[in-house]
Amino acid sequence: MLDTIKSMDEQFVLPTYARQDIAFVSGENARLKDTEGKEYIDFTSGIGVVSVGHGNPVVTKAICEQVGRITHISNLYRIEPQAECARRIVERSGYDMKCFFGNSGAEANEGAIKIARKYGEVDGQVKRYKIITLEHSFHGRTITALKATGQEAMHNYFGPFPDGFVYAKSIDEIEGLIDDHTVAVMIELVQGEGGVQPLDREKVQALAAMLKAKDVLLMVDEVQTGIYRTGEFLASNLYGIEPDVITLAKGVGGGVPIGVVMTAKKDIFAPGDHGSTFGGNYLSTAAANAVLDVLEAYKESGKLDEAFLYFETELKKLFEEYRGLFTDAVGFGMMRGLRAKDADTLARVIAKAREEGVLVLKAGRNTLRFLPPLTISREEMDEGFTRLRRALAAL
Amino acid sequence: MLDTIKSMDEQFVLPTYARQDIAFVSGENARLKDTEGKEYIDFTSGIGVVSVGHGNPVVTKAICEQVGRITHISNLYRIEPQAECARRIVERSGYDMKCFFGNSGAEANEGAIKIARKYGEVDGQVKRYKIITLEHSFHGRTITALKATGQEAMHNYFGPFPDGFVYAKSIDEIEGLIDDHTVAVMIELVQGEGGVQPLDREKVQALAAMLKAKDVLLMVDEVQTGIYRTGEFLASNLYGIEPDVITLAKGVGGGVPIGVVMTAKKDIFAPGDHGSTFGGNYLSTAAANAVLDVLEAYKESGKLDEAFLYFETELKKLFEEYRGLFTDAVGFGMMRGLRAKDADTLARVIAKAREEGVLVLKAGRNTLRFLPPLTISREEMDEGFTRLRRALAAL
Repeated sequence: MLDTIKSMDEQFVLPTYARQDIAFVSGENARLKDTEGKEYIDFTSGIGVVSVGHGNPVVTKAICEQVGRITHISNLYRIEPQAECARRIVERSGYDMKCFFGNSGAEANEGAIKIARKYGEVDGQVKRYKIITLEHSFHGRTITALKATGQEAMHNYFGPFPDGFVYAKSIDEIEGLIDDHTVAVMIELVQGEGGVQPLDREKVQALAAMLKAKDVLLMVDEVQTGIYRTGEFLASNLYGIEPDVITLAKGVGGGVPIGVVMTAKKDIFAPGDHGSTFGGNYLSTAAANAVLDVLEAYKESGKLDEAFLYFETELKKLFEEYRGLFTDAVGFGMMRGLRAKDADTLARVIAKAREEGVLVLKAGRNTLRFLPPLTISREEMDEGFTRLRRALAAL
Repeated sequence: MLDTIKSMDEQFVLPTYARQDIAFVSGENARLKDTEGKEYIDFTSGIGVVSVGHGNPVVTKAICEQVGRITHISNLYRIEPQAECARRIVERSGYDMKCFFGNSGAEANEGAIKIARKYGEVDGQVKRYKIITLEHSFHGRTITALKATGQEAMHNYFGPFPDGFVYAKSIDEIEGLIDDHTVAVMIELVQGEGGVQPLDREKVQALAAMLKAKDVLLMVDEVQTGIYRTGEFLASNLYGIEPDVITLAKGVGGGVPIGVVMTAKKDIFAPGDHGSTFGGNYLSTAAANAVLDVLEAYKESGKLDEAFLYFETELKKLFEEYRGLFTDAVGFGMMRGLRAKDADTLARVIAKAREEGVLVLKAGRNTLRFLPPLTISREEMDEGFTRLRRALAAL
């Protein structure tokens, strides 16, 4: 069966991914089963998407009920689950914001960039337009989001790219790059794709204060960190800052494509300035509301923090046991990494782990990345770490 | 209940749409019911999205079964419904192509533009990069898709936009605009947002031949026309052309966010050149496969063509009765428009129609637009036209 899928995939899908030869058919929380009947512990959750676990019954029920009634109708009309989802996200964030919806992290970041550019407009002219981002950042795959991404390798092939993006080597360098044309700074508080690289909390707070004083917008890309991934509802909450714009995507819809832009600039757009056919439709926002039901209850019961602590403790134990392979343990909450001593070791770890039945990810050049479902059980964690130990021992 | 939704919506969602004060709670094929219990005939299908009708049982069942098993996992692994969906779309199109998936029409068009730009690369440098689009086109809301859109009003606020887009006033003007830097032409065969404006078939065929001779890519934006909307599987089939790139979105997933890029340039991308976290996931492609099940059977049974003919006949009757209000009847298949004599008349028609319980759309400046579910029944059409006549008579 895998062979059939593989040959169909190779014949009809462009090779934009170097795929691994596994095809999953079903899952239950952090367990996945492939076409060959082999079972895996999933420490990836579809790269931070399926935070509530595979086949989550609450989300499944909400989706089934919603699509049986109405899946989609235009944003020309009022959409109850969308308004409800906006209310819940804003209230839970604690920020005085409004939001709008798209279908991915890239679209959310495009929306954020559009807010910044319109904010920089004076008398119908874009006077301030420069956006400072960080090296090793990742903001998405549309042409403008690629240019916002602070990785030179992402700026090939697809030009001319839009002007107006400036890259800071580190958070310390940002202030010195601000000029009269700077309108915003866009950062990830924990760089995900860049290698699970958290920024320093005090430096971020100082940056936020400095930007506020200069009327430069602070835009936080929480596509990967948002919705409890780092322990708080938003990483911005954890860092104790009040950004002007926050983008969300991966974990919001439990696997249903969705992106969210939150902003304190509530009057920045007039009707017609932006739009999205699918964005915020019945399906995606009903799913998001169910995800919030699950995760809010999990957080409030104390179980989320317990799970986070257990995962951290177990991961650190493993790190200590394998200091020969790993040089550092990084990250927060359920967004964690072990720096492998080199890229080759990392590739061997990932391949061996898969053989042993545990899925882990690569980030940056040499980081072994962990993004398990937030609802992963203690038993699933134990099983995953046992398998990972077997993989490491066999290297 | 509508008041609660409205106040929540206004408090928490940015006003990117001038929404009408209706909120739908359920639907069955072309019928919708709102919070007040009022019933409507839907001649809009969420702007061409819900082609298989609201609450379609085949699609609902497919979605429920899929999300109960697995909604999403990364494109790092092989995904059976994605490979299957790619196979079905390519085979049904009759073109020798491969495809990849995103989450919206805007993302699909970004993917098409990326293909063109990479195609224009010689020895690591983008040598040909200009893309010609048509005036009054609409290609999406990301910054690059906005710039690709041939409407000046879309080029405000969000600059600097990427260079390299050239606008032709009409299809006749395209050849004269081609220079050594031109790599592609992107067109909608029937402009949707622009006012249900079909291009001339012979001119399109001549354009295709001319572009092929000059090695300039023909990219067809079928976000709105694709998947049987115009009567054939693709409008490109109806026009008898073989484009280099085709983009799809609205009607593909029955309301689940999805975008598709098809291309004859099967080797244009290497792993890493493009990516999408959600794109082509289990949910969106399982839904798309169910949509194809429904619509392929409907087309093959002859019922789709019957429905199209009936809708056209009834719409033309109504047009003849109201020549005082409308100056022309345009479009194909289930993508049709009546040109109102002016924008004010159009606004009054739409408002009155809503009062009478039938939903219709605006396109361009003064076009009354019809995009009903493709599965709309004769009885639903009759009821819709009866209500529309009541609305027109009362103007």
